[in-house]
Amino acid sequence: MSDPKYLTGDKAAINGFIDRFDVFLFDCDGVIWSGDHVFEGVPETLELLRSKGKKIVFVTNNSTKSREEYLKKFKGLGIPSTVEEIFGSAYSSAIYISRILKLQAPKNKVFIIGEAGIEHELRSENIPFIGGTDPAFRRDITEQDRQGLADGSLLDPDVGCVLAGLDLHINYLKLAHALQYLRRGAVFLATNTDSTFPSHHTVFPGAGSISAPLAYMTGREPLALGKPSQAMMDAVEGKFRLDRARTCMVGDRLNTDIKFGVEGRLGGTLAVLTGVSKRADWEAEDAVAVPAFYVDKLSDLRAVEL
Amino acid sequence: MSDPKYLTGDKAAINGFIDRFDVFLFDCDGVIWSGDHVFEGVPETLELLRSKGKKIVFVTNNSTKSREEYLKKFKGLGIPSTVEEIFGSAYSSAIYISRILKLQAPKNKVFIIGEAGIEHELRSENIPFIGGTDPAFRRDITEQDRQGLADGSLLDPDVGCVLAGLDLHINYLKLAHALQYLRRGAVFLATNTDSTFPSHHTVFPGAGSISAPLAYMTGREPLALGKPSQAMMDAVEGKFRLDRARTCMVGDRLNTDIKFGVEGRLGGTLAVLTGVSKRADWEAEDAVAVPAFYVDKLSDLRAVEL
Repeated sequence: MSDPKYLTGDKAAINGFIDRFDVFLFDCDGVIWSGDHVFEGVPETLELLRSKGKKIVFVTNNSTKSREEYLKKFKGLGIPSTVEEIFGSAYSSAIYISRILKLQAPKNKVFIIGEAGIEHELRSENIPFIGGTDPAFRRDITEQDRQGLADGSLLDPDVGCVLAGLDLHINYLKLAHALQYLRRGAVFLATNTDSTFPSHHTVFPGAGSISAPLAYMTGREPLALGKPSQAMMDAVEGKFRLDRARTCMVGDRLNTDIKFGVEGRLGGTLAVLTGVSKRADWEAEDAVAVPAFYVDKLSDLRAVEL
Repeated sequence: MSDPKYLTGDKAAINGFIDRFDVFLFDCDGVIWSGDHVFEGVPETLELLRSKGKKIVFVTNNSTKSREEYLKKFKGLGIPSTVEEIFGSAYSSAIYISRILKLQAPKNKVFIIGEAGIEHELRSENIPFIGGTDPAFRRDITEQDRQGLADGSLLDPDVGCVLAGLDLHINYLKLAHALQYLRRGAVFLATNTDSTFPSHHTVFPGAGSISAPLAYMTGREPLALGKPSQAMMDAVEGKFRLDRARTCMVGDRLNTDIKFGVEGRLGGTLAVLTGVSKRADWEAEDAVAVPAFYVDKLSDLRAVEL
């Protein structure tokens, strides 16, 4: 692996970089914005790429929002976009279930631990589900629940898959249900397995903290449908029919974004220094992944000749 | 490791076995009872041992009940016992915190994720705590919580330890609090790390499913105060001043009970076949632990000469 090429301030190199690719996959947090603050010059940079005929896809592990809800965030922050440009891990999960897993009816129902974004995307692929935001699951476990879980009378016999994503309403009853479905052979999926997610200048429990207890209880690891899982890359490729050699992944995290692009054998990866990872991270001997290019910030790409 | 000696039906061997020990540590579920059903002859077997001057200690990983509550269960099931004979993982945790960890005031408060049994035992050792069954933590997370967790205003600066046990009211707000305390350097303890616990002829999420997401988020493993952790053995030894060479651990599970006794270098371990583990488990090449003795059921020890 050669050293990453530093592009900031090097017009010729930036030109060459942009010309190498037709598609740019973007991580959002730490690249486009931090929380609700859009980095300066980013909307213009995206417009520049579009004006050169580049395809743009926002690839995010956030599973709580559907693509429509994500689009609202983009618009609210002044970033022109379309639903078709947004690829979240809830959508990735729906695509995987409907087009790759192809559960056969009647055992094709999904037990969701997660928020409305997952429900919305599963609905868009006509995937039957239970759980999720259903108020029936938002309560304490009772003796009656325990009996019904044990004798199976409380379980839906059509559930063939457990999908775990970030759930702000996680509770014991949901974990106990998921445990029973998994013990009865349900496929184990996770929208993503991020241990935490950054917000308010600190971190909060991520989707991985929801699947972790299930993995611990069953001794089974979920198939993750978010970065850096290649199941997500396969779903992105399937949807956009992209040429991997002409595609570049742009992100701030080596262990998710850059690893995602490198393991997906994309034509290139671009690291930005406005998020989590720093130069020292890929210069370390045990670096989890090394980008092909890097810039201080995404808007440095605007220094290109128009 | 030599083969375990089979005692059932062998009077002389049983006599020799009992004479070797002054103290018997008993696991409960799968040995004394299964759920609410006491195995036949068990109360008489315990009385036999007591009549021979043996010290009896019930060592359980259940952290939801205090020793007093456990005593009620014993009495309700017709097994004479005293609080002093009961050693649960909540009590073990309290002993560890007060006598070994010795947190210095003011940073000596414990953030509990768990039920009343833990609170009761911490109170018995005069350990200050927050969390636990406090209704203030039994609700959804709000934007105000997020801000208060991020800027620290919602956090108690005196918390120096997070103790995670089985919590039937686990939720996102508690996980988010624990994550912040752990990131700020709190000691990470778990009453025990059992992935599941058996009930109603199936299994439900155990205490380990509460600490697992915290371990996953922080990259730190908790110190467990239940079997097979030797921190529990140290606490048992400290309390009862027992001679390990003259002590025998009795249990049904190789990976908790028998491992606990073997790693604790006790004089002996006795497996009973009324619970989880079977002969084939210790005869397997990769057996997690091999008992020194075994019987079909605990009451087989009654075949001794009186």
